[in-house]
Amino acid sequence: MTSILDGKATSLAIEAELTDAVTSRLGSGKKRPHLAAVLVGDNPASRAYVGHKVKACARVGFESTLVERPLDISQEELLQVVHELNLDPEVDGFIVQLPLPDHINDQEVLEAVLPSKDVDGFHPVNAGKMALDLPCFLPATPMGIMSLLERANIDTQGKHAVILGRSSIVGTPMALLLRRNGVPGNCTVTVCHSRTQDLADHTRRADILVAAIGRAHFVTEDMVKPGAVVIDVGINRIPDATKKSGHRLTGDVDFDNVKSKCSWITPVPGGVGPMTIASLMQNTLTACAQKDA
Amino acid sequence: MTSILDGKATSLAIEAELTDAVTSRLGSGKKRPHLAAVLVGDNPASRAYVGHKVKACARVGFESTLVERPLDISQEELLQVVHELNLDPEVDGFIVQLPLPDHINDQEVLEAVLPSKDVDGFHPVNAGKMALDLPCFLPATPMGIMSLLERANIDTQGKHAVILGRSSIVGTPMALLLRRNGVPGNCTVTVCHSRTQDLADHTRRADILVAAIGRAHFVTEDMVKPGAVVIDVGINRIPDATKKSGHRLTGDVDFDNVKSKCSWITPVPGGVGPMTIASLMQNTLTACAQKDA
Repeated sequence: MTSILDGKATSLAIEAELTDAVTSRLGSGKKRPHLAAVLVGDNPASRAYVGHKVKACARVGFESTLVERPLDISQEELLQVVHELNLDPEVDGFIVQLPLPDHINDQEVLEAVLPSKDVDGFHPVNAGKMALDLPCFLPATPMGIMSLLERANIDTQGKHAVILGRSSIVGTPMALLLRRNGVPGNCTVTVCHSRTQDLADHTRRADILVAAIGRAHFVTEDMVKPGAVVIDVGINRIPDATKKSGHRLTGDVDFDNVKSKCSWITPVPGGVGPMTIASLMQNTLTACAQKDA
Repeated sequence: MTSILDGKATSLAIEAELTDAVTSRLGSGKKRPHLAAVLVGDNPASRAYVGHKVKACARVGFESTLVERPLDISQEELLQVVHELNLDPEVDGFIVQLPLPDHINDQEVLEAVLPSKDVDGFHPVNAGKMALDLPCFLPATPMGIMSLLERANIDTQGKHAVILGRSSIVGTPMALLLRRNGVPGNCTVTVCHSRTQDLADHTRRADILVAAIGRAHFVTEDMVKPGAVVIDVGINRIPDATKKSGHRLTGDVDFDNVKSKCSWITPVPGGVGPMTIASLMQNTLTACAQKDA
């Protein structure tokens, strides 16, 4: 019997908690949380992601600011934008939507963000604290997956988690979080990637399988252990003539065929995606609350 | 046929390179590298470790300073020591020998070290850059193991590395480094720990097995895959009536019985230990050279 790990419903529950927290803050005379997002250029996917974040702010009662800059912005101008947001006492946290244009040094921009406003958790100080199991802003996608496991009461202790992907924003933080001595956590963790030999041999041993490789329907039924928990981080566009847009979103997992084999599975859309947004909102509230003291 | 991964010989080769680098620096009028070590209290093991580091400095021509403080030093006084070393232009890098007394907040002390002088790689900025695959000071033990693999020309690409231990100074960095897209690197990496179920089932699948759990002779022959590369990070004292001290050092691996089963194995002592010291010296040279510009 497979259950759907419903990221949409869980994110709504988190949003309800955040809405309550905002109401409570305002009632005691505290500041309304404020998230800013920097969008460079006009990539439709980036615009859509940022739009989702702005809308989520509105739903939970956060203020939001969208800072738009042209594609040909210089490194210095972009650093200046970051600097101003660092200094702005009204802005509690902010993100610089990736990817940035090729002429921009992404890393320099991310490192310019004040760690205390780095609600994406991409600054080395936050990445380091995550690796050292210290309190910090966690990257939103792995944080959302941990919340999803926690709120579904999925027992992870001593389980074998296999992660497909070693990126710094999903695969690597996921491995660090699942290995932690905590709940959820205490997994034996295997990280697989493009150089892994006999990949299916690893995935078939996973009690918890996290797919974050960006290849549509890559994880097929034969690669999944019966009863596994399957987390699909992929957001891939594939052609679909029945859609007005000509495409639809699909995950890294062949959902229709894998579904019946596992105990839990996240759908795409409606799984990890909404949890990512909800986690960013949680980080923004935390950033705001840390300034209360 | 098993070969010994000779950390002692490899560390001597690195020391010879460092000695040459110092001679070359001095010849071109550059500064002699200078490592400082802070030792709090009189723990015999800590004193011995610091002593090894000071001696290594002398061998390669580095200056060294041992800063000794009593066990009852206050948090503020210790932070002041760190602050002075941060500001001292003569000191290129320094370490605070762990463990610190119980009344000291270790993390606050480690975070007070200037990242550019943090040759132990324990500051969150360095840990974060390591997790993000950016240039940084790597913790000495995992760095030494990577050097040992590299200098023995052991092929790690696509191999399955299994790491026993999830500490922030060995197990976790080891996992991050072996997963990297590099040479050595590109391993599929599994991290096991005290909560892992069926541990031997994992270790038996390891092409590269790294034992860092601090339990003497824990890894036995039946836990090792034939032909594996076995890296023993353990330094355990066990009673030995034949020794004047009444004890001897032994690793986490049952060396005598495991030896014949693997392709490569590090001895204890003479394996990872000397590589740790050599790596600290390499980091100190790097810290010094970064100030040249």
